[in-house]
Amino acid sequence: MISSKLPKLWYGGDYNPEQWEADVWAEDVRMFKLAGIDIATLNVFSWALNQPAEDVYDFAWLDETIDRLYSNGVYTCLATGTGAHPAWMAKKYPDVLRVDHEGRQRKFGGRHNSCPNSPAYRKFSEKMADKLGERYKDHPGVLIWHVSNEYGGYCYCERCEQAFRTWLRNRYGTLDRINKAWNTRFWGHTFYDWDEIVVPNALSEERGGRTSFQGISLDYRRFQSDSLLECYKLEHRMLKKHTPHLPVTTNLMGTYPELDYFKWAKEMDIVSWDNYPSLDTPFSYTAMVHDLMRGLKSGQPFMLMEQTPSQQNWQAYNTLKRPGVMRLWSYQAVAHGADTVMFFQLRRSIGACEKYHGAVIEHAGHEHTRVFRECAALGSELQQLGDAVPDSRIQAKAAIVFDWENRWAVEMSSGPTVALDYVKEVHKYYDALFQNHIQVDMVGTDEDLSAYDLVIAPVLYMVKPGWAKKIEEFTSGGGTFVTTFFSGIVNENDLVVTGGYPGELRNLLGIWAEEIDALFPDQRNSIVMKHPPGGLKHIDGMKDVYDCGLLCDLIHLEGAEAVAEYGQDFYKGMPAVTVNKFGRGEAWYAATSPEPSFLQAWLARLCENKGITPLVRNAPGDLEASLRTKDGKELLFLLNHGSEEVQAGLLKEGYTDLLTGVRHGDTVTVPAKGVMILIN
Amino acid sequence: MISSKLPKLWYGGDYNPEQWEADVWAEDVRMFKLAGIDIATLNVFSWALNQPAEDVYDFAWLDETIDRLYSNGVYTCLATGTGAHPAWMAKKYPDVLRVDHEGRQRKFGGRHNSCPNSPAYRKFSEKMADKLGERYKDHPGVLIWHVSNEYGGYCYCERCEQAFRTWLRNRYGTLDRINKAWNTRFWGHTFYDWDEIVVPNALSEERGGRTSFQGISLDYRRFQSDSLLECYKLEHRMLKKHTPHLPVTTNLMGTYPELDYFKWAKEMDIVSWDNYPSLDTPFSYTAMVHDLMRGLKSGQPFMLMEQTPSQQNWQAYNTLKRPGVMRLWSYQAVAHGADTVMFFQLRRSIGACEKYHGAVIEHAGHEHTRVFRECAALGSELQQLGDAVPDSRIQAKAAIVFDWENRWAVEMSSGPTVALDYVKEVHKYYDALFQNHIQVDMVGTDEDLSAYDLVIAPVLYMVKPGWAKKIEEFTSGGGTFVTTFFSGIVNENDLVVTGGYPGELRNLLGIWAEEIDALFPDQRNSIVMKHPPGGLKHIDGMKDVYDCGLLCDLIHLEGAEAVAEYGQDFYKGMPAVTVNKFGRGEAWYAATSPEPSFLQAWLARLCENKGITPLVRNAPGDLEASLRTKDGKELLFLLNHGSEEVQAGLLKEGYTDLLTGVRHGDTVTVPAKGVMILIN
Amino acid sequence: MISSKLPKLWYGGDYNPEQWEADVWAEDVRMFKLAGIDIATLNVFSWALNQPAEDVYDFAWLDETIDRLYSNGVYTCLATGTGAHPAWMAKKYPDVLRVDHEGRQRKFGGRHNSCPNSPAYRKFSEKMADKLGERYKDHPGVLIWHVSNEYGGYCYCERCEQAFRTWLRNRYGTLDRINKAWNTRFWGHTFYDWDEIVVPNALSEERGGRTSFQGISLDYRRFQSDSLLECYKLEHRMLKKHTPHLPVTTNLMGTYPELDYFKWAKEMDIVSWDNYPSLDTPFSYTAMVHDLMRGLKSGQPFMLMEQTPSQQNWQAYNTLKRPGVMRLWSYQAVAHGADTVMFFQLRRSIGACEKYHGAVIEHAGHEHTRVFRECAALGSELQQLGDAVPDSRIQAKAAIVFDWENRWAVEMSSGPTVALDYVKEVHKYYDALFQNHIQVDMVGTDEDLSAYDLVIAPVLYMVKPGWAKKIEEFTSGGGTFVTTFFSGIVNENDLVVTGGYPGELRNLLGIWAEEIDALFPDQRNSIVMKHPPGGLKHIDGMKDVYDCGLLCDLIHLEGAEAVAEYGQDFYKGMPAVTVNKFGRGEAWYAATSPEPSFLQAWLARLCENKGITPLVRNAPGDLEASLRTKDGKELLFLLNHGSEEVQAGLLKEGYTDLLTGVRHGDTVTVPAKGVMILIN
Repeated sequence: MISSKLPKLWYGGDYNPEQWEADVWAEDVRMFKLAGIDIATLNVFSWALNQPAEDVYDFAWLDETIDRLYSNGVYTCLATGTGAHPAWMAKKYPDVLRVDHEGRQRKFGGRHNSCPNSPAYRKFSEKMADKLGERYKDHPGVLIWHVSNEYGGYCYCERCEQAFRTWLRNRYGTLDRINKAWNTRFWGHTFYDWDEIVVPNALSEERGGRTSFQGISLDYRRFQSDSLLECYKLEHRMLKKHTPHLPVTTNLMGTYPELDYFKWAKEMDIVSWDNYPSLDTPFSYTAMVHDLMRGLKSGQPFMLMEQTPSQQNWQAYNTLKRPGVMRLWSYQAVAHGADTVMFFQLRRSIGACEKYHGAVIEHAGHEHTRVFRECAALGSELQQLGDAVPDSRIQAKAAIVFDWENRWAVEMSSGPTVALDYVKEVHKYYDALFQNHIQVDMVGTDEDLSAYDLVIAPVLYMVKPGWAKKIEEFTSGGGTFVTTFFSGIVNENDLVVTGGYPGELRNLLGIWAEEIDALFPDQRNSIVMKHPPGGLKHIDGMKDVYDCGLLCDLIHLEGAEAVAEYGQDFYKGMPAVTVNKFGRGEAWYAATSPEPSFLQAWLARLCENKGITPLVRNAPGDLEASLRTKDGKELLFLLNHGSEEVQAGLLKEGYTDLLTGVRHGDTVTVPAKGVMILIN
Repeated sequence: MISSKLPKLWYGGDYNPEQWEADVWAEDVRMFKLAGIDIATLNVFSWALNQPAEDVYDFAWLDETIDRLYSNGVYTCLATGTGAHPAWMAKKYPDVLRVDHEGRQRKFGGRHNSCPNSPAYRKFSEKMADKLGERYKDHPGVLIWHVSNEYGGYCYCERCEQAFRTWLRNRYGTLDRINKAWNTRFWGHTFYDWDEIVVPNALSEERGGRTSFQGISLDYRRFQSDSLLECYKLEHRMLKKHTPHLPVTTNLMGTYPELDYFKWAKEMDIVSWDNYPSLDTPFSYTAMVHDLMRGLKSGQPFMLMEQTPSQQNWQAYNTLKRPGVMRLWSYQAVAHGADTVMFFQLRRSIGACEKYHGAVIEHAGHEHTRVFRECAALGSELQQLGDAVPDSRIQAKAAIVFDWENRWAVEMSSGPTVALDYVKEVHKYYDALFQNHIQVDMVGTDEDLSAYDLVIAPVLYMVKPGWAKKIEEFTSGGGTFVTTFFSGIVNENDLVVTGGYPGELRNLLGIWAEEIDALFPDQRNSIVMKHPPGGLKHIDGMKDVYDCGLLCDLIHLEGAEAVAEYGQDFYKGMPAVTVNKFGRGEAWYAATSPEPSFLQAWLARLCENKGITPLVRNAPGDLEASLRTKDGKELLFLLNHGSEEVQAGLLKEGYTDLLTGVRHGDTVTVPAKGVMILIN
Repeated sequence: MISSKLPKLWYGGDYNPEQWEADVWAEDVRMFKLAGIDIATLNVFSWALNQPAEDVYDFAWLDETIDRLYSNGVYTCLATGTGAHPAWMAKKYPDVLRVDHEGRQRKFGGRHNSCPNSPAYRKFSEKMADKLGERYKDHPGVLIWHVSNEYGGYCYCERCEQAFRTWLRNRYGTLDRINKAWNTRFWGHTFYDWDEIVVPNALSEERGGRTSFQGISLDYRRFQSDSLLECYKLEHRMLKKHTPHLPVTTNLMGTYPELDYFKWAKEMDIVSWDNYPSLDTPFSYTAMVHDLMRGLKSGQPFMLMEQTPSQQNWQAYNTLKRPGVMRLWSYQAVAHGADTVMFFQLRRSIGACEKYHGAVIEHAGHEHTRVFRECAALGSELQQLGDAVPDSRIQAKAAIVFDWENRWAVEMSSGPTVALDYVKEVHKYYDALFQNHIQVDMVGTDEDLSAYDLVIAPVLYMVKPGWAKKIEEFTSGGGTFVTTFFSGIVNENDLVVTGGYPGELRNLLGIWAEEIDALFPDQRNSIVMKHPPGGLKHIDGMKDVYDCGLLCDLIHLEGAEAVAEYGQDFYKGMPAVTVNKFGRGEAWYAATSPEPSFLQAWLARLCENKGITPLVRNAPGDLEASLRTKDGKELLFLLNHGSEEVQAGLLKEGYTDLLTGVRHGDTVTVPAKGVMILIN
C-alpha cells in the first residue's frame, strides 16, 4: 500500500485552486464528494505564488487548501512546485535560464525551463523542498510528495559545459581514456585539455538530428539525465529529512526519450507516470508502457498520476474519449500495476495553453456532464473495490528488455537506416505477446533474469559490461533468449566490438553476421520457413512464407541452426531466423524485421515450448488480459478494447467478477469497451 | 471621387524610373499614353536615393519625374518611401534593425525591415514625410499620398520589449490586472514587476507556432500592430499638416494576418490594397477579400493599388494570366468597390528578386506584346467608362463578420484541432452566398448591423465587450444571425467564459455546447436533416444527409429547435444545426463544419426567408455578379470566370451594357472570361 | 601517367592506422597484399595528432607508416590533413571557427569547419603544408599530394565580411559599379560606403532558400569559392616549393553546389573526386559526373579518390552494393577517364559517425568476407591490365555545357518556377545521349569548342561576356548548337538583357521569347511535331506528339523554323522546338522541357546529321559504352548495368577482351553486371 491511511485505489488528480476565487472552492469540494475523489495533487505550479520574492515565503493558501480538503475526506499529494521557476528569479538570477540546442539563451517563459546546473535553481528548489517538508511534515492529510513535474529537456549553457567536464573527469579520469572512448582520432578531434571539450549541440557536433561523434553525444545525454536527477535528489533528500515516513515520487512520461528512467527509479520511492495516448495509439502500446513503468522498480505497483478524463489539448486532433473509454483505460493502468487512478485535472483552467484539456469539472462548472458522470461512476466503483486490488503483484514468465542507453545509441547511429525506431521494434515484440495474451514484464539491463523463462531483447545494439554474461547464464540455465538484427554491435561507449557481429553475443547465438543490408521503405524481402525438424512448422497455422524488411543481416551459422531463410535477393537462402542450443537453453536470432503475423506465431511457439501459458484462450486481440495476485488470490483483468462484445475462454472455472459479483464458468462475454475483474 | 482632378477609374501603377537611365524615360511616357495610363505611384523605394546621408536630401530626380509625368497627363500617387531604410542608416543607427522571432538582430537587407519602435526610424521617417509634404504640397500632379509600403512583420528587440511594457501599463494599469488577464497563475507565471515581462517569442513563450500563454501573445500582436500603425500615423500627421486636402493611404494586403486592418482603416483616408491571387485561388476568395477591403471603411470605395499584368515571381509556380484574365480580375476589383486599377508595375526591373514579376512594359521594352496590348485595351475601356463608376456604392443586406483579434485567438488556441483555419471557415460561408449570387458586406465588430437582414459570424470564438449585446439587438430586432461551432468561448483576453459554451451567446442561441469533438482529417460525420416543420426540407433540392467534419460540438437544446442532427458516432441524434427564435429574429447555429452544398442550400433558404434576393437568376457559380449604385442608377457587373460562355437571368429588363452600348432583355450571355457592366 | 613509378591503374584508398594499435598494422599490410592494393591515402584527419600544440610537431607515426607501406609495395597519396582543425586551435584561436548562415559562431566540432579567411587557419595550414613538403620531399613512397579534404561550406563571420568588401573592390573598383551590378536602386539598397555592405545570409538578404538580391548572393558564392580556393593555393604553393615534381590534388565531390570546380581545376595538377551514388541514382547520372570531372581539366584523366566497397553510412537507407556492382562501378569510372580506383576506406573505424561506412577490411577484420573477396578479385584484374589503360584519352564529338555560376543564378532566381533544377535539366540531355550510346564531354564556358560537332547548353540562363560570340562562331563554322527555354536571359551579374529574350542568343537562335509560362507539377502541355520538311518525322519511330512541362516559352520566329508546336492552352500552335540556320551550322531551341523519349529521338537525329556515331549498335540503355584511346588503340568499355545479360553490336570486328583475352566478332554478349574492355 502506498499509504495505510487510504487503503484503496486512490482516485483524484491535479487541482489548482489558486487559479480560482474562493467562491469556487466550496463547489469543488461538493463535486469531489459526488465523484468519490479522495486524493488531490496540489502546488504543482505555485512557486511564484509561494515565494513572491527571494526572501518571502507565503503558504497561507496552501495551508488552507490542504486543511479544507482533508476535512472533506480528500488527501493531498503534495508537489514541491519547482517545475517552473518564478519570473523574478529569471530576472534576478539569469543562470536559471537554459541555453537551448541552438546555443540561444532562453528568456522567461514556458515551464520545465530551469538549467539543472544553475546554482540559483538548485539553491532555491532545495530550499523550497526544505520549507515544505518542515511545514507539512505532520499534516495528516499529506500522503505523498511529488517533486517538480515531468522532468525533461536539456541545457547547453556554459555552466553545463563546465559541469560536463567535471562529470567526464569522474567517469573517465583521464583525457586519454576519453579520447579512446570517443575515438577522437577519427576526424582529428583529439583533446589535450579538458577545456577543449565543448557541449555537443547544433553549433558543434549535432546537426539535423545527427551527431558526428556518438561518444560525446551519448555521454551528454547521460550527463543531462544525471544533472536533472541530481536536482530531484536534492529535493528528495530534504523531504526525507523531514518525513522519512512519506514516499517521494516525480511523474514520469512513459517512453520519454531524454531521461534514463531505470536510473531515476532507483531514487524514487514509488514510480508515477502520466498517460496520454492518442486516438491512434495502439492499446498494446499503452499496455507496454504501463508494464515498463512497473518494471522500473522491478514490479512494484506504480501510480497513474495523470490522464485526461476526456480530451487533450496539445495533440493535433484532440478526440474526445468515447463513452466508457476513460473507465476502460483507467482499469488498463490498474491491470498492469497501477494503484491509483488520477487525472490532470480536477477543474479546467480558463486561460493559457491547457484550457482545452479535459477535467473532471469542465468549464460548464456543474456535475451534469457526460464526463463528470463517467468520473463519478468510476469513483463509486473504486470505492466498492476497496482494498482488493492495491499492492497486488504481477508475475510474468516472459520479459522484454528496454534500455534507454541502447536506445540513444541506436537512434544516434549514422547508418545503416534512418527507419530503425528502437521503441517501435520493441513494441512489435510486445504486441506479439499481447496478442497471444501472455503476461509480460518490461525489464532493464540491471534486472535479475532468473524469474523468467523467456527473455526478448529486440535490437540489442549496445551490450553493456557484464550483460552478455548475464544473458549467457540465463540461457545456459534453461532460458529461451531472443534477439534480433543489429545486436551485439557496440560497447557502452558505442565502440564497435571487432572480430565479427554480433560481438559479445556471437558465441551465445552461434552465428556471424557478415553484412547488414538496409532496405528502402518500399523494398521487402521474405522469410521462408524451413521444414522440420529445424523449422517452425509444427505450430498450427504457421505459414510457409512471411514478409520482412527494414534491415537484413547476412548471417553465417557457427553452431546455430537455420529455421528460416531469406526468399529474395542475392542473399536468398541465407539464414533469416536461427536458433542455437546453449547449455540447457536456446538462443534465437531474427536477422530481419518480420511482419507481425510471424512474430505472433513464432513467439506463441516459444512460449508453448517453455510452458508459458496465455491468460485466456480463444480470445481475439481486442481483448486484453492481465493478472495481478494478492494474498494468494488471482485478480484477472479482462478489458475489451473493441466496439463489439467478445468471448474469452478462461483457464479455470469459478471466477467471480469483483465489479458485479457474478460468478462465471469457463467462458465469459465482455461487452464492448467493457471491463471485468475476476477473482479466484 | 478620390480626386476631382481625375474623375474616372484611375489606371496606372508603380513606376521606378530611378532604376533606369534617362533615355528610357521618354519611351516610358510614350507607352503610358498608348496604354491610357493616368496615374503612377512614385518613390516607393527611394529613401536611400532621396537621403544619401543623414543631413543630405536630394529630390531632383523626383521633381523632374513628377513634372514630366504631369506634363504628359499622368498624375502621381506619391509614396513616402519609408518601407526600406537606407544602408547608411542601418550602419549608423542599428536600432532601426529588427530583432526576429528567434531573438536574432538582423543585418541590413530585404525591406519592411525597420523596428517600429526604433527612435531613429521614427525620427527619419517622420522627417521624410515632412519634407515631402512641404515640397510637393502645391504640385498639381500629386493626387494622393502613399505611406511606406505593405506594412508588416514584427520586431522583438529590447526597445520593443520596453515599449510593450508601456503599452501594457496603458491598457491594464496594474500588474494585478495583467496577471488576471493572462491567467498567470497557470504554470506559475505571476509577475511582480513590470520588468519581468519579456517579449513572447521563440525564446520565451512561443515555439513551433504555439504559445504557452495566449494572453501575452495576443497582446503582443495588438501591440506590434499598434506600433506599426503609430509609425504610419506619424507620417500621416506630417502629410496632413501640409496637404489637408490630399487623401493619405498605405497599401494593405487583404487577409494579411499580422495587422488589425479594421483598426488601421480608421487612420486611413482611403483603403488601398495589393491583390495577388494564384492560379489556384478560388475567385470567390478574391471577391471576399475585395469585400473585406471595402468593409474596412464601411463601404467606402477603395483603391486596387497593385496587381500584376501577367505573372508573379514569388509564388512557387508563376502561371501567366491567361488572355482576358487581367481584364476580368481588374473589373472584379471594380465590381466590389475599387475606383482604381493599378499595377505593380509599369516597367519591369532588370535585377534583384522581382525581375520576373510582370509589368506593363516588359523586358522586351516595346508595345508589341500580348501583355501590353491587353493593358492598352483595358486603358481604353476605362477612359470610355469615364465617371460612370467611381464613387458608386454597394448596398448589401447580408454581412459576414471578420475580426483579426478573433482570428489571432483562434489560430493560437492549443486545442481542439490544428486543422481549424479561421479564414477558410469564413470563406466557406462567403462562397456559399457567392454561389447564390447574394451581395455581401464583410464587416468588423465595430460595424453598425442595422442595415442588414442576415449577419453571419463563423467561428465567433472571441466575443468582445458589448458585441454579444449588439448581436442580440440585431436579432431581436428581426435579423437572422448565424454562427458556428467553437463560438462564444472566450472574452477579449482569451479567457474562457465559464458556465457553459457558447458563453455570452448562449441565451441568444438557446443551446448549451457540452463538449467539442475534434475529428482526424480522414474522419467524417454527417448532418441528417430533420423533417419539417423543424427541418429545412422545403428548399427544393435539399438532400437528406450531408457530410461534415473538423469539429463537432455536442449540444443540448435550451430553447432552440434542432433542424438537423448528427448521423454517426456516440453523439448520433444530437443536434447538428439549430435555430432559436429570439425576439423578432432567429439565431442559427451550425455545430460542425458542413460540406459546401449544405451551406449553399441552407443559406439560400435563410436569404429567401429574409427577402434577400440574388443579383441574377439561373446562373452558374462561374458567373460572378456584383451591384454598385450611383445617383440612383444600378451598375450590375457580370463576370464570367469560366472557360465557356454562360447565360444569366436578370431580375428586370432594360439594362444597357456600358462597354458595348448593347441593350439587353431579361437574359444575357456572357462570353468566357467576359465582363459586362449593365446600367439601368 | 600520374607517376611513372606506378604505371597502372592505382588501387587502394584512405587508410587511418592512427586509429588503431600497432598489432593491427601488420595485419593491414598482409591484407593489402592479398587485395592487390598499391596506394594508400594517409594523414587526411591527423592534424591534431601531428601538431598537438601550437609549437609542437610530431610526425613519427607518419614516418613509420609511409616507410612500412613503401617497404611492402604500397605507395602513399599524402594528405595535408587540414580538413579539420585541432581542438586546441579552436580554443586558442577562435577565429578559425565559422559563423553559419544563421549568423551563429560555431563551436569546435565536425570537420570542414574552418573559416577560409581566418588568419590562424591560413597560417597554420600553410605551415603544415610547408612542414610536410619539406619532410617527405625525397621519400620514394610518396607519389602525390592530397590537400585538405572535400572543401566546402561557407562562412559568414566578420573577417569574411571584411574580406568580401576587399574582394568586391578588386572586382568592381567602385561602389557605383556595384550599385549598378546589383541593381541596388531596387528596394533602395544603394551603398554609399563599403562598410555598409554586409554578408548575405539569413539575417540580411537570404531567407528560406531565397535571396532578395541575386547580385550580392551570386558574388558571395564566388567569393567564398575563391576564399576556399585561396586556402588550397596557399598549401599548393608550399608543396610545389618542395616537390615541383609531385602532382597536387584535392578531392572534389562531383556536382557539389558550393564551389566553382572549373575555376578550381585550373589550380589542380590532377582532378580527383569522391563518388557516392545511392541505390536510386541513375547510372547515367554517375556517368555524367565522371565526364564532368574529366571535363574540368579538358579531358585529362582523373582520380577516383573515394568510393565505398559496399555500403555508405550517411544516406537514409544504406543499401549494400550487390555482388559485382563495386567492380562494375569501378570500371565505370575508368571507362570515363579515371586512372585510379580508390576507396574510402581500407579499414573501418570502430567509433564516431562513419563506423557503418564500408571498407576493404570490415569490422570482422579478416579476408573471408564477400566484400574483401570482391576487392581482391578487382585488385588482381587491375594488376593484369597493367599499363594498358592509364593515360588513355577520350575523344567526343558531342559536348554538354555545365556552368556553376549559371547554376547559382538559376537556382537563386525568384520565379518563374521553384521546380527548375539546373542539374536535372542538364542530366536529361546527357541521359538522352547516353541512351543513344554517344560519347559526351562535359565542358565549361572557357572550353574551346572547335573539337565538337554538337554542343548542348541546357538552360543557358546566364550568358557570360564573350560566350555568345564563341557559340556563334562554333555554329557559323558548321556546328550544331542546342539550347532550351530560360536561356540568354541575364549577364554575369544576373541583370536581364533587355530588348527581348533570349538576349545575346536571339540572333543566333532566330527567335524571340515573349513570355514564359510556369506549369504546376500536375500541369502538362504537349509538343506536336510538324510535318517535314520542317519537322523531325524522318527519324524512324518519331511520334507525332510528346509530353512536356515545367516551363513553356512563348516564342515568335525571327528567322528560325518551327519543327514542333504546342498542343494545348492559349499558346497552342506557337513554336515549341525551332531550328535556325546560322552560317554553316544550325541553332536549335527547345522552348519547354520535353519527356525523355523526345530528347532521345531528337538528339539521335542531330547526331546522325552530324555524323556522330554511337559507340555500339542495337544495344539497350542498360548497356553503357565508353571509348578511351591510347597509342592509336581503342579501348572500348562495355558495362552492363542491368540484371540480365545483353547483346551489343560493335562497329567493327576484331576486338579482344583485355580481361579475358577472348576475341570477338561484330556482336558481344555482356553478362548481368558484367564488364568488357575491348581493345582493337
